[in-house]
Amino acid sequence: MDNFAVNSPTGEMNATESFIHHAMEIILEDAVKKATDVREKVCEWRSPEQLKELLDLELRDKGESESRVLQYCRDAIKYSVKTTHPRFFNQLYAGMDPYSMVGSFITEAITTSLYTYEVAPVFTLMEDTLLRKMIEMIGWDEGGDGIFNPGGSMSNMYAVNLARYRYCPDIKEVGLFAAKRLVILTSQEGHYSISKGAALLGIGTKNVYIVSSDKRGKMIPSALEEKIKLAKSEGAVPFMVNATAGTTVLGAFDPIEEIADICEKYNLWLVSLLCLLCLLRVNSVAWNLHKMLMVPLQCSAFLVRDKTSLLQHCHSARATYLFQQDKFYDVSYDTGDKSVQCGRKPDAFKFWLMWKALGTTQLEQIVDRAIAMARYLAQEIKKREEFQLVIEPEYSNVCFWYIPPSLRSVPHGPERWKKLHTVAPVVKERMMKKGSMMIGYQAHGDKPNFFRMVVISPQVSREDLNFVLDEIHNLGQDL
Amino acid sequence: MDNFAVNSPTGEMNATESFIHHAMEIILEDAVKKATDVREKVCEWRSPEQLKELLDLELRDKGESESRVLQYCRDAIKYSVKTTHPRFFNQLYAGMDPYSMVGSFITEAITTSLYTYEVAPVFTLMEDTLLRKMIEMIGWDEGGDGIFNPGGSMSNMYAVNLARYRYCPDIKEVGLFAAKRLVILTSQEGHYSISKGAALLGIGTKNVYIVSSDKRGKMIPSALEEKIKLAKSEGAVPFMVNATAGTTVLGAFDPIEEIADICEKYNLWLVSLLCLLCLLRVNSVAWNLHKMLMVPLQCSAFLVRDKTSLLQHCHSARATYLFQQDKFYDVSYDTGDKSVQCGRKPDAFKFWLMWKALGTTQLEQIVDRAIAMARYLAQEIKKREEFQLVIEPEYSNVCFWYIPPSLRSVPHGPERWKKLHTVAPVVKERMMKKGSMMIGYQAHGDKPNFFRMVVISPQVSREDLNFVLDEIHNLGQDL
Repeated sequence: MDNFAVNSPTGEMNATESFIHHAMEIILEDAVKKATDVREKVCEWRSPEQLKELLDLELRDKGESESRVLQYCRDAIKYSVKTTHPRFFNQLYAGMDPYSMVGSFITEAITTSLYTYEVAPVFTLMEDTLLRKMIEMIGWDEGGDGIFNPGGSMSNMYAVNLARYRYCPDIKEVGLFAAKRLVILTSQEGHYSISKGAALLGIGTKNVYIVSSDKRGKMIPSALEEKIKLAKSEGAVPFMVNATAGTTVLGAFDPIEEIADICEKYNLWLVSLLCLLCLLRVNSVAWNLHKMLMVPLQCSAFLVRDKTSLLQHCHSARATYLFQQDKFYDVSYDTGDKSVQCGRKPDAFKFWLMWKALGTTQLEQIVDRAIAMARYLAQEIKKREEFQLVIEPEYSNVCFWYIPPSLRSVPHGPERWKKLHTVAPVVKERMMKKGSMMIGYQAHGDKPNFFRMVVISPQVSREDLNFVLDEIHNLGQDL
Repeated sequence: MDNFAVNSPTGEMNATESFIHHAMEIILEDAVKKATDVREKVCEWRSPEQLKELLDLELRDKGESESRVLQYCRDAIKYSVKTTHPRFFNQLYAGMDPYSMVGSFITEAITTSLYTYEVAPVFTLMEDTLLRKMIEMIGWDEGGDGIFNPGGSMSNMYAVNLARYRYCPDIKEVGLFAAKRLVILTSQEGHYSISKGAALLGIGTKNVYIVSSDKRGKMIPSALEEKIKLAKSEGAVPFMVNATAGTTVLGAFDPIEEIADICEKYNLWLVSLLCLLCLLRVNSVAWNLHKMLMVPLQCSAFLVRDKTSLLQHCHSARATYLFQQDKFYDVSYDTGDKSVQCGRKPDAFKFWLMWKALGTTQLEQIVDRAIAMARYLAQEIKKREEFQLVIEPEYSNVCFWYIPPSLRSVPHGPERWKKLHTVAPVVKERMMKKGSMMIGYQAHGDKPNFFRMVVISPQVSREDLNFVLDEIHNLGQDL
């Protein structure tokens, strides 16, 4: 005991104050201003081997000086990809909103967990406010429930678990061992987290039945009904359908109304992975604010149209060390037992602060503008002979091929597609090594590699979109 | 389209620069300096109804001014609990480390996801470095694998899923419907996330067999063997044992060596929820850095002693839009398919930066000092007639009763225990309304409500611990 100094807490904090000050300057200069400046690079590409050489990754017994630590901060920012840069189109997240970023700094500095009101009074109320508002926007007049959690995949697992609980609450206690085989239905364009969730939840990936989509990427309702009948004829129990409002690759919207009719007919739970859309008839929604609304990752809400406390019943374990019933305040504000987690970050706050700053109108404009920008890009693609749309964009994903001059004369057929397949990976490599922009590519079904460009950030201008097309041509015309 | 201005990105960022500057000043002043100052309150308690009145929670169509938004930041900090304050002992997290806090600001500003190297090159390598170092510290000479995830409960669910996959890989595909009933074994002191995990994973809470602990809270090895035999005699398959190194309430250490012998005998997978301890013989470890090591929540590692890519095999779904195999770099650095999530925060970076700044030696001192402080507190409790230890502390949890003067003459027996049960909730209410400190309380088994005080932060002095005991007496002597 006597080996330890009895430090004065304020003394210790004063010593690190200048460090925090310097670090904040670096963050503002390098991670905010430079990172979002269109004249700077999107990324400073280094291979894993090169980057290991550059960064002094080793963790040693002895601590290092503040100036060294500040240099580590600079280096970490320098070699990180600038996802907030106007020419980052690689994922379903992009752009920077300063209000939600500041909100995230506050939750990090305050560092608490959302399980009980007593340790997170402010954030508990803000989460509640947001969930109510989002439920209102969806249009569930009879109300609903919800919870923020660490991402869309987790939200989808919540959806599967709630649908299963609603089908048979006993499974929570006795497991699936004596249960009839359960079947989940999703389209071929559905997100892979449904499959991951089926594996984790003991349902099994083979019990996810894949429903065909049409050419535009939308689930075919008649194909859904066929698969439901197939499962039933096998003696299995179809219990939920996953529809998507904005699929991952093509940005397609499943026909929710027709799917809802089928779900009603067969008494299936209908869940949706969504974007920003009226989803009146679905039973639950997974809504990622860290995508189209630019809140720093992670910020993801799971919403359920239910007034029977399904979330609580399905997930509660009543830990006595957290959820004492003899507290001096209304313990219905202790929301932790709705979660499958114990500690849970107050992700709602950053979105609440952004909403306060921008208002609903500007939030809507962010989405409208992104969709308009995607349409603009599609128009420009149609004007240029070296580009070809994979599909007419419905949302903010624009999928297209770049066809280099050498390929234009190759007749349509397997040979052309085989060559086309190799173009996007090379252009991608070149853009990353140059650091000029970042766009994703992939093959899809029988289609060879194409670019999937996602337009989100309101900091993207038409000039940036023109630049993207010029630059792809610039980088790939020799292929 | 023409309704949208084509904003210049740099212009837009300059406009919000002053906002970010002001917000950072508020964070440094209120959320860092004031929050950790022992002369300030731990919390500014308001009931949910009062707090709703104080905060303007409503989300409107129109955005609000920057000065209003800055005021919302101040208010959010003011009415939040200061978990970094030297007199916050309410949870298994506490204290502030400035380096990991700065690291968390950087990951929020950089905002990316850990699934592929191309969007998170720096953070991917840092996570890898940390996992290797932690595996080395545990002492798994043959190596291992691991992943950071959103908390200890998630880590425990990973453990259950991997143990199940190792027992029968087919379950991933076909589910549990045709499987023999699986049984998990954990002690009565084990964390409730094992039960939550069993429910979520389709195993069922009734198939978690509870093994008795001794008076010190340690699992009784002979009782474990009996429960294993019981499950087998019922035709069920016990497949994993959860041991704990530092239980949630009592801070007890299960006898890992004896438990490992039993697991070896019956070929069971042994997982552990841990603290900072040599865990050579366990198969996996869930390690929360946001607890004893003060990294801002969330920072949690799951580590597995395995060289067969179990994490990858168990969780992979091979999403084509992320994990293209024709990339221009070594795709073994795309670690996302080890996770059950899709997007995943780079939580490792904040811990990496802290480790760099402090070195292993100082990290060890944080833990040693916390344990020494807990011992000091236990000694002081023994010196005072109005306090009584529930159990001799083994780790940094100190569980004790406060016995007000009126109770001291009441003979031991049900009446005394009934009255004692009401003391801690009232003292807790009074300390929170005064804002002088925060300590958890709870009943446990047949024991009436006691205080569970967790000492973590190196900013806690002996004076603070003396204050706690004086203050409890001060607040509760009339009861």
